[in-house]
Amino acid sequence: MHPDRFSFSTENCSIQRSLEIVGERWTLLVLREAFYGIRRFEDFVRALGCPRDALSARLNTLVEEGIMRREPYREPGRRARSEYRLTEKGLELFPALLALLQWGDRWTADPSGPAVKLTHRDCGAPLTMIMGCARGHSPLTARDVEARPGPGARRVA
Amino acid sequence: MHPDRFSFSTENCSIQRSLEIVGERWTLLVLREAFYGIRRFEDFVRALGCPRDALSARLNTLVEEGIMRREPYREPGRRARSEYRLTEKGLELFPALLALLQWGDRWTADPSGPAVKLTHRDCGAPLTMIMGCARGHSPLTARDVEARPGPGARRVA
Repeated sequence: MHPDRFSFSTENCSIQRSLEIVGERWTLLVLREAFYGIRRFEDFVRALGCPRDALSARLNTLVEEGIMRREPYREPGRRARSEYRLTEKGLELFPALLALLQWGDRWTADPSGPAVKLTHRDCGAPLTMIMGCARGHSPLTARDVEARPGPGARRVA
Repeated sequence: MHPDRFSFSTENCSIQRSLEIVGERWTLLVLREAFYGIRRFEDFVRALGCPRDALSARLNTLVEEGIMRREPYREPGRRARSEYRLTEKGLELFPALLALLQWGDRWTADPSGPAVKLTHRDCGAPLTMIMGCARGHSPLTARDVEARPGPGARRVA
């Protein structure tokens, strides 16, 4: 344990702030479907089987937070509706989902193997996520990591 | 969208299974503190400011799931208690927390900067997480990824 662990506030912890935005039940699953290419409300309902009001609330939050944006579309003879698309901020949440996927593949998958295989679109090779450092040492694990107060660290009185 | 999106069950999705285990409020924050080196119940309470019964429930789940293990300790003149330590399965959740941290650092941090700085213990350089493919193409982004049914994919009737 860092000897100063209790001297700093966790109020501005980036993990906590991320979870305040995407940590609600259904939110990361809505994002999963968005990464799979789902854009329309009815398709999210169909893919997730989640209550419509929960989905609606989650999509509103994601739009408010700038993680998704609404794009109007209209089918012939129907009223205008919105599609939901990932913004740059939303696309950058992919590594968080990928990390959960890889952990789940390793520790929770059925004996038959994972349900989904992610590959590099251009070459077809499996996706990997590697932890390293800016000087090029890799792969690193949690044991190689040191946590220190950052520039925004706040001391508690 | 994959043309077959609705032909496959999401029941055995690894993201969903991971979230069933670690997706509850407080669980990822308990793990954050464990990565910071916290081991004792009272220290988790102090670091997180969470209700004791919630913490107790989360720790029990984490132990049941093999993500943490109990290790007995006894302070002079007190009854024996348990420390909570990350197992290998638990240590492998670090990339998921790191991904949330990096996203939060980029999109939610105060103008003064992130609260925490993670570095490579041996060389002091900042930690990075890079998405690539098994043939060595990197860095990749969400746009470079293709999702296909994996070996455990289940068709729905």
